[in-house]
Amino acid sequence: MKIYRANILHTPTPDAFQVLERGYVIVSDEGRVERLCPTLPDDLRDVPVTDFGDRLLIPAMNDLHVHAPQYRNMSLAMDLELLPWLNTYTFPEERRFADITYAGHIYRRFVHELWMQGTMRSAVFATIHPEATLLLADLFTEAGLGAYVGLVGMDRNSPDYLSNTTEEVVEGTRRLVEHLRANPLVHPIITPRFVPSCSDTMLHRLGQLAEELQLPVQSHLSENMSEVEWVHSLCPDASSYGDAYYRHGLFGQTPTLMAHCCYTEGEELELMKRNGVYVVHCPMSNSNLSSGIAPVRTFMEQGMRVALGTDVSAGHNMSMLRVMQYAIQVSKLRYAESKGRCRFLSLSEVFYLATKGGGSFFGHVGSFEPGYDFDALVVDDSYLNFDNYTVEQRLERYIYLGDDRDIRVRFCAGRELPEPPLE
Amino acid sequence: MKIYRANILHTPTPDAFQVLERGYVIVSDEGRVERLCPTLPDDLRDVPVTDFGDRLLIPAMNDLHVHAPQYRNMSLAMDLELLPWLNTYTFPEERRFADITYAGHIYRRFVHELWMQGTMRSAVFATIHPEATLLLADLFTEAGLGAYVGLVGMDRNSPDYLSNTTEEVVEGTRRLVEHLRANPLVHPIITPRFVPSCSDTMLHRLGQLAEELQLPVQSHLSENMSEVEWVHSLCPDASSYGDAYYRHGLFGQTPTLMAHCCYTEGEELELMKRNGVYVVHCPMSNSNLSSGIAPVRTFMEQGMRVALGTDVSAGHNMSMLRVMQYAIQVSKLRYAESKGRCRFLSLSEVFYLATKGGGSFFGHVGSFEPGYDFDALVVDDSYLNFDNYTVEQRLERYIYLGDDRDIRVRFCAGRELPEPPLE
Repeated sequence: MKIYRANILHTPTPDAFQVLERGYVIVSDEGRVERLCPTLPDDLRDVPVTDFGDRLLIPAMNDLHVHAPQYRNMSLAMDLELLPWLNTYTFPEERRFADITYAGHIYRRFVHELWMQGTMRSAVFATIHPEATLLLADLFTEAGLGAYVGLVGMDRNSPDYLSNTTEEVVEGTRRLVEHLRANPLVHPIITPRFVPSCSDTMLHRLGQLAEELQLPVQSHLSENMSEVEWVHSLCPDASSYGDAYYRHGLFGQTPTLMAHCCYTEGEELELMKRNGVYVVHCPMSNSNLSSGIAPVRTFMEQGMRVALGTDVSAGHNMSMLRVMQYAIQVSKLRYAESKGRCRFLSLSEVFYLATKGGGSFFGHVGSFEPGYDFDALVVDDSYLNFDNYTVEQRLERYIYLGDDRDIRVRFCAGRELPEPPLE
Repeated sequence: MKIYRANILHTPTPDAFQVLERGYVIVSDEGRVERLCPTLPDDLRDVPVTDFGDRLLIPAMNDLHVHAPQYRNMSLAMDLELLPWLNTYTFPEERRFADITYAGHIYRRFVHELWMQGTMRSAVFATIHPEATLLLADLFTEAGLGAYVGLVGMDRNSPDYLSNTTEEVVEGTRRLVEHLRANPLVHPIITPRFVPSCSDTMLHRLGQLAEELQLPVQSHLSENMSEVEWVHSLCPDASSYGDAYYRHGLFGQTPTLMAHCCYTEGEELELMKRNGVYVVHCPMSNSNLSSGIAPVRTFMEQGMRVALGTDVSAGHNMSMLRVMQYAIQVSKLRYAESKGRCRFLSLSEVFYLATKGGGSFFGHVGSFEPGYDFDALVVDDSYLNFDNYTVEQRLERYIYLGDDRDIRVRFCAGRELPEPPLE
């Protein structure tokens, strides 16, 4: 058992922060929260307390959509829309991951950056290359970070240099499953790139594999108008872009993450709700690629599952603080555009999405309620706190102004994680 | 004479970066750029060279709209639209600047932060308090930073605790003018808060004062729909919000900055063009306060003068890097909304706005062309440059990912500025 003391904030529900000033969190030997206490309980007087003083203690960040092989392109080359952007900048970079040395060089930095930014869990796209994908999974394991790692499947409308066959992606995914069998924190996930990149045959086989091995699924949905129109012409029988996944068993038949959903409405939205498919909102990416603004407020009001993602490298920054901030800001621009008809997101709502909203995909993650994995960040915001701010104001200022410099300690599933090596 | 060597980038025109890899800049004893040279000229072989190695050397940042007394509220309290936001959060904070000790506490931090962020010139709103405004001007002078500093006038629709009379603002401005008479870098600027806060009498007297003393003017324009409608009802005779300034001599009769212009079009836009009024685009603020997106591409295509501003504390961050980034992103959202009818801003265009665009209000500032004041930043981006990026890519990554940590040296008008004291 461990006891930590600090200014504790979390969001068991989206509507408000729960704040415990200079409170205690009791963590079991299994790395789970036993309880939060405002004062030290009498029966625990003998357990040593790690006191973080006036620092903030918050649930760690969860990034539910990020492309590890695009790390080198982060903050570069955002002058095109999605489809030409993929062909011009992204596919040529992903090609380089056939080279395992290069993959190691970039993936080590990627995993290091997740650690640095306080992102303890992520759902990650690798590339079509099985060796590099196994390496990425190993790097997560070594770092002690939680992740879903996906070998990408793509066999149409893709360059020859970046295509695989249905057999290859099935075989590679089986290897990944085998490799991660006993892994407590790193798991495989079925990862068709997106409908335009995957033949019906590939989608169908991946849906079967998801069912057979009870694996979760991640992909992209309704990100950009040209993409949505393209899917309609590629799949004239599907009633929506989402249905083009659903008919192959890739849309909620097992737990499913769908990134973007900027243009999800009507039947597609109903299908997502019925199947409990997660919306992964990526506002930074949707701004950078001129995609648009997803109706997240509508999704939340309809009780849908919503998480946040950086979507690096269409997102330009791995910080989930920045993603929270963008989520609020684009919802305000949508509010302005609608002349105030829809509400915009609040700080506690986006904090919920970045912690418990996304964390729920990993189990009991993203909150300090009893039974939750102790994924936490200790934040030193003293340089920002020069005028008697409240603890909640301090968190707001940290989210908008702070960065990785301010994170002093990182816990994943109860374990304090040291800095992973860069080389 | 001084000679500096580094990877030099600037934007004499908005359409492209000029790049000089490992080039030289020759700076006169008066602190002005004499010329840029790819190699060291023979006649200067005897002048010692300060070599910044592989670092980047770029023009310093210029923030053309920022509220110094709102520094404490930065990154807080952005859950309301402009008008209730002013009454609820902003006016009560500005009231505190009647206390000169509090003003010193905050203004020192504000000036320190400008230095830290590499913003060498700014156009700043103080409050209605003359003593605190003089102090702010002195702090700029001590730091060696360039600024236009304005004593705010507001005498209607303002709380009793934050109102002044026409006589007080005229008298206070005259004191400021006298105080700054011999100052080479810090200057006074006529600063009516905005039309709803200023009676016709006050606006008229301030217009006269601007003409009499040939002082520039700064204020707010067409930021928010409710505000625009309010101005129409307050000034039924004015043909536009802009005309409500123009008829009093406050709209380009002397050099004029107008922040926001989210809803500027038609006659107001023509009036701005005819009078050479600057648009100060504040995209971070316009997102945070749900104001909307200014049509900056249109402004630039029409040959208007455009600068960028943080607008702290409606903007949540003093970094002009972040403002550049938001300027691109909101223009992309506008592009998406218009279904691609308007182009979005490029990186060289926003860099031009943050350097030469805003710098032009201060004279020859914001570029390394001959005769320009040497305002410059030396940037160490080595931690971002792990894979042979081009110099231009390095700058792009610095703008999106870098921060104040990376600035090694700051020059304003040729002088290397040491860190100003925080207390």
